[in-house]
Amino acid sequence: MSSLSVPPPQRLQNPLVVPHRHMFGPGPSNVPPRISQAGAKPVIGHMHPEIFEIMSDIRSGIQYMFQTRNNMTFAVSGTGHTAMECAIFNAVEARESVLTAINGIWGERAADMAERIGARVNTIVAPPGGIFTNAEIEQALFKFRPVVFFLAHGESSTGVLHPLDGIGQLCHKYDCLFLVDSVASIGGAPLYMDQQGSIDILYTGSQKVLNAPPGTAPISFSDRAWQKISQRRTKPVSFFLDLGWLANYWGCDGKPARLYHHTGPVTAFYSLRESLAVLAEEGLENSWERHRNVAEYFHASLENMGLKLFVKEKRARLPTVTTIVAPHGYDWKEITSYIMKTHNLEISGGLGPSVGLVLRVGLMGCNSSRASVDMVLAALKDALNHCHRSKV
Amino acid sequence: MSSLSVPPPQRLQNPLVVPHRHMFGPGPSNVPPRISQAGAKPVIGHMHPEIFEIMSDIRSGIQYMFQTRNNMTFAVSGTGHTAMECAIFNAVEARESVLTAINGIWGERAADMAERIGARVNTIVAPPGGIFTNAEIEQALFKFRPVVFFLAHGESSTGVLHPLDGIGQLCHKYDCLFLVDSVASIGGAPLYMDQQGSIDILYTGSQKVLNAPPGTAPISFSDRAWQKISQRRTKPVSFFLDLGWLANYWGCDGKPARLYHHTGPVTAFYSLRESLAVLAEEGLENSWERHRNVAEYFHASLENMGLKLFVKEKRARLPTVTTIVAPHGYDWKEITSYIMKTHNLEISGGLGPSVGLVLRVGLMGCNSSRASVDMVLAALKDALNHCHRSKV
Repeated sequence: MSSLSVPPPQRLQNPLVVPHRHMFGPGPSNVPPRISQAGAKPVIGHMHPEIFEIMSDIRSGIQYMFQTRNNMTFAVSGTGHTAMECAIFNAVEARESVLTAINGIWGERAADMAERIGARVNTIVAPPGGIFTNAEIEQALFKFRPVVFFLAHGESSTGVLHPLDGIGQLCHKYDCLFLVDSVASIGGAPLYMDQQGSIDILYTGSQKVLNAPPGTAPISFSDRAWQKISQRRTKPVSFFLDLGWLANYWGCDGKPARLYHHTGPVTAFYSLRESLAVLAEEGLENSWERHRNVAEYFHASLENMGLKLFVKEKRARLPTVTTIVAPHGYDWKEITSYIMKTHNLEISGGLGPSVGLVLRVGLMGCNSSRASVDMVLAALKDALNHCHRSKV
Repeated sequence: MSSLSVPPPQRLQNPLVVPHRHMFGPGPSNVPPRISQAGAKPVIGHMHPEIFEIMSDIRSGIQYMFQTRNNMTFAVSGTGHTAMECAIFNAVEARESVLTAINGIWGERAADMAERIGARVNTIVAPPGGIFTNAEIEQALFKFRPVVFFLAHGESSTGVLHPLDGIGQLCHKYDCLFLVDSVASIGGAPLYMDQQGSIDILYTGSQKVLNAPPGTAPISFSDRAWQKISQRRTKPVSFFLDLGWLANYWGCDGKPARLYHHTGPVTAFYSLRESLAVLAEEGLENSWERHRNVAEYFHASLENMGLKLFVKEKRARLPTVTTIVAPHGYDWKEITSYIMKTHNLEISGGLGPSVGLVLRVGLMGCNSSRASVDMVLAALKDALNHCHRSKV
């Protein structure tokens, strides 16, 4: 007689079925076969010489993508949120002051994370779709004297690409580290970690422009950031995200011995490596230009259809994730559902402060093409014809 | 002229090459094609209805594997260490008392994690390879009055399978949650979360008996655990690992709306789902028996070769990870390197307190077979013949 009180679940007897879908939401994006097949290669040990070579490839690829020579550059074993926590857990100690810029959801989340570890958090807030002037930022830096200032370069919830020029210098003037979220922008919009704005901590995700599956998150720390972190009075709250350990695992600390820290997701590293190789093959500037051209074509076509872009200021529009003002008289959920059902294509509604205000379309990495734009436009036209429109 | 100061790395121009290798170390184990190909299926959204179905499959599969009816059962988006932090971050608040049992590396790491979040940590320590009596555990529970007691069911660093009977009851007598690490044991040795010992929090990894790539970590919380957690005075230090959010994302909290928490590693979920399906197809008891039989055959053969098992007590030997006393007169590193080079086969040395003391061989999931044992034995014999043996 069986000793088991919980029987094997019937539902696991069904085969795993996953539809193919056009992933034109704010992420994850589609993964091309070259990258998904890389992830299906055999598992090797997380401490084997071959994986250390692959990790070195990844570090070089991230340095290129971020345009940085920071030695402390690697990938976190997790998604963008893990990288965000890695940045905050290491750079901030309890009772230190943190400033986050909120013009969408990401500044809110960064504030939440910093509060949880006992930081004194202040925020500057712009309406969804808005940006901050350097004067506003300086005022807040002067007032709150934070050790870290958080800003999203690509605000995927509102479709904003935030200008970065001069902000790093301001942060440094006030002895503050400049922490930038580039999850939705990297590879799709110009960003020079070292040259432009002297960013101290930069992170992104694998599942947007890189077209790798979600599960790894590139991150880089400047020497200034590392200097502060190495002088911490307390250990970071997370062993898993402790920069000292991670730097050793990734061979960034120059020590001869690499200790066992955690079991790296080796197959996710394969895909990430391959996605960085694809980006290097195209060339960063070509990728930026392609995303810009496709976005311009998309934005002009949307306006020709009579739709409105949510971000008024042209230079502040993300080329990767476009926010469209939710069409008047329609239920946005009906539109996205209709397009999913009829066109097998994901576009999404708002997130956080932009819920109900926008439709979001992400065209990232291999999805950034005129052909994709034409598909989205056709789907949108069809939806606007078929979905219910109230006359009020 | 290019605006880039960091050129595309040459090393990314080389194709990605990953060797196939017999992964007979303590993990990760080999991933069969069915599971790796599941992970190469197309990416869909982390909030699409199809992924919620797959996540429900995973929850059922984990409930079966853990033998639990806990509703709060899901997979953490990370490796075993992430699950360990998820357990501790949620179950423990600053200044609370935590007790960890150290008979290898895992109790040390749990203690480190709890200390980082400000818990008062006490430990009981057994020599590597040893186990604790229930009387010793009760004494410590009585003395330290912890809110959580940590024990590794499978101590992969020392090869110990710790008995669980009666310990949960002891914990409950002292109003303490029983937290068990089963990363190296689950699926390979009997464990009944609900019936046996009333475990309150149980977690494991994907990359051992399950034969999925590293990157997801099944976890389950009892009602008692959830009750304590839902009455926390402070938020857990991690937003990413906050059980309230995770429970909602995984549909464990019964709320109709599932909010965006983080971008789940959907392709890793596919592989995990498939690995759980494989386990359900074989049947948990069959898998336990297979691992036991293979381990007995392996252990007897090792002793016939004149090698000694590190864990003296038979019932305390892990059937998944075998620790062999490092052969006298040899350099263990030479043995593992020789076997890797000559036989393309990973076995490993010790970890933490067992470094230098043991060789470790993991035969987990699809690797647990007589054929694998014979390969390891042949490799070991060959190594002992060819490696340098000092006469001292």
